[in-house]
Amino acid sequence: MRTVDAYAATSATDPLVKTTIERRDVGANDVLIEIAYAGICHSDIHTVRGEWGDIAYPQVVGHEIVGVVAEVGSDVANHAVGDRVGVGCMVNSCRECENCLAGEENYCLKGNVGTYAAVDRDGTVTQGGYSTHVVVDADFVLRVPESIPYEAAAPLLCAGITTYSPLHHWKAGPGVKVAVVGMGGLGHMAVKIAAAMGAEVTVLSQTTSKQDDSLRFGASAHHATKDEATFETLANSFDLIVNTVSAVIDLDAYLGLLRRNGTLVSVGAPPQPLPVQVFSLFAARRSFAGSGIGGIRETQEMLDFCAEHGIAPEIELIDADQINEAYERVLSSDVRYRFVIDAATI
Amino acid sequence: MRTVDAYAATSATDPLVKTTIERRDVGANDVLIEIAYAGICHSDIHTVRGEWGDIAYPQVVGHEIVGVVAEVGSDVANHAVGDRVGVGCMVNSCRECENCLAGEENYCLKGNVGTYAAVDRDGTVTQGGYSTHVVVDADFVLRVPESIPYEAAAPLLCAGITTYSPLHHWKAGPGVKVAVVGMGGLGHMAVKIAAAMGAEVTVLSQTTSKQDDSLRFGASAHHATKDEATFETLANSFDLIVNTVSAVIDLDAYLGLLRRNGTLVSVGAPPQPLPVQVFSLFAARRSFAGSGIGGIRETQEMLDFCAEHGIAPEIELIDADQINEAYERVLSSDVRYRFVIDAATI
Repeated sequence: MRTVDAYAATSATDPLVKTTIERRDVGANDVLIEIAYAGICHSDIHTVRGEWGDIAYPQVVGHEIVGVVAEVGSDVANHAVGDRVGVGCMVNSCRECENCLAGEENYCLKGNVGTYAAVDRDGTVTQGGYSTHVVVDADFVLRVPESIPYEAAAPLLCAGITTYSPLHHWKAGPGVKVAVVGMGGLGHMAVKIAAAMGAEVTVLSQTTSKQDDSLRFGASAHHATKDEATFETLANSFDLIVNTVSAVIDLDAYLGLLRRNGTLVSVGAPPQPLPVQVFSLFAARRSFAGSGIGGIRETQEMLDFCAEHGIAPEIELIDADQINEAYERVLSSDVRYRFVIDAATI
Repeated sequence: MRTVDAYAATSATDPLVKTTIERRDVGANDVLIEIAYAGICHSDIHTVRGEWGDIAYPQVVGHEIVGVVAEVGSDVANHAVGDRVGVGCMVNSCRECENCLAGEENYCLKGNVGTYAAVDRDGTVTQGGYSTHVVVDADFVLRVPESIPYEAAAPLLCAGITTYSPLHHWKAGPGVKVAVVGMGGLGHMAVKIAAAMGAEVTVLSQTTSKQDDSLRFGASAHHATKDEATFETLANSFDLIVNTVSAVIDLDAYLGLLRRNGTLVSVGAPPQPLPVQVFSLFAARRSFAGSGIGGIRETQEMLDFCAEHGIAPEIELIDADQINEAYERVLSSDVRYRFVIDAATI
């Protein structure tokens, strides 16, 4: 066991505070990572505030982690001390079900083990990346190419893969018209990745306030969803809509923007069920789908893709003592586009 | 104009009665069909009773029509007097939109023209197949192979194509596990077609009362959905679920039966929106889709497929004066599996 510094939630209502937590000894297939940066994901806030169910406190969150390998177990062959590495939303899975065997551990039939607030296979509760060090099974550690700016790499591990995976699965590319709903941490990555894949990208955002950013990130158009005319102008337009908004949206209005055989894929889920008029689907053989992060192989593919295409998230780097303030700004959508914690300040 | 016998609804509440209606003169691209048989689809009942919106009366319904060509217009090259032909759910479309140009007139962006209770391009209200004759544009007339039993062919024009199209689109075939929800007019055709395509077919019906039929039609299993254990036993089992039930179902329970990347496609639509927990979708990258009948090219393909594989609907042949009684039996699910009207009795 090793005692390390961290920022933890001590209850659903109190601010996060600096504390120490225990990390397990480095096992034969483990990697000890000295964390350099950790992104702040909206999921972190839902989790610490108990909005996704009761959790045990103290709880350290953070599942967008980059750092350097400080130690490896005796069986680790794919990572070496000094490597720049990353950890995303999961740190383990059953490794036996058909989805794990297919390399899609994110869809593990027994449930993948989340990077925080989950019960690992050894029975311990996982603690996330707002910390100086973490010990992770080597099979769930990614290589982060040096060409990706170090401080900006962290959000790729969640926001990057969450958007890359559906864009890749539904074949965004030349000749494919993609719309991205929501221009936040996920949305801005969806725009950059879809554009790099060669798709024609349209941003659907509440207002036009981020229009310049949309075009700078590679979109060819930006429409305000507060303007009802948008839904008439763009009817039957898109092959793929990536919905990055976790709040309840008027799904039928967005489904009407899909061409025949088009798919609207949500990458976030509101706790409430979404009402769907089946007619919106069968009027043009449309699909409403969901996609959850990505497997380890695909996450590595995404990191390599971003390195190759010079893509990185837009971030605001903060010190650890700004985490609570950053949470409030995330909740009021006042971040362009992702907060990243400098772990040296923890 | 030509006066022909027909059974029509005169109001939303009165029984259908024998009457006469006018059919247009045979235009240059028209075909006059002497109707032999017309199937009874649940849509007919919804329509005449005004459940899908107000309609003008008198209204003749019926969109599962087979008969013989009695006359052709001067420009008709693909049908000849004496041919056995069929007409399904649509008799026209814009022919200019991207979906029509792709041969998927069922998804016409201006709305295809329904075989009944719709406004045709000439401004007249279409009248359906519970009649002795109908005049239809040759482009919307199908060839009905002689090897399909004549009286059983009619339901293929709606129930057949409605189930064939999604099975074909989502690639039902060897190695693909298909579930069919509901064993009525559509469901029993879905089972036969999916089995003929080589898929492994499971029927999900309220009870086991139709189990013998399921197996006889080609399914390898039949499960009762009233038994909650069904949803545990079959979790993560199917690549494709074809939902033929138009009533509201517990969609999340059925989505849980899909494997990773699986699709649940509804071919009927309740008027109410269906609530969907997005988590049910993104837990395994599942899709919820809709499919509406099929294009003319695909409908012909379906008829040829059924002829080749010796597939036909199971029917109860009735005289025209039994239509009202048949409607009541359809509403109480007391038909195995489709009523067909002998047009000679009209």
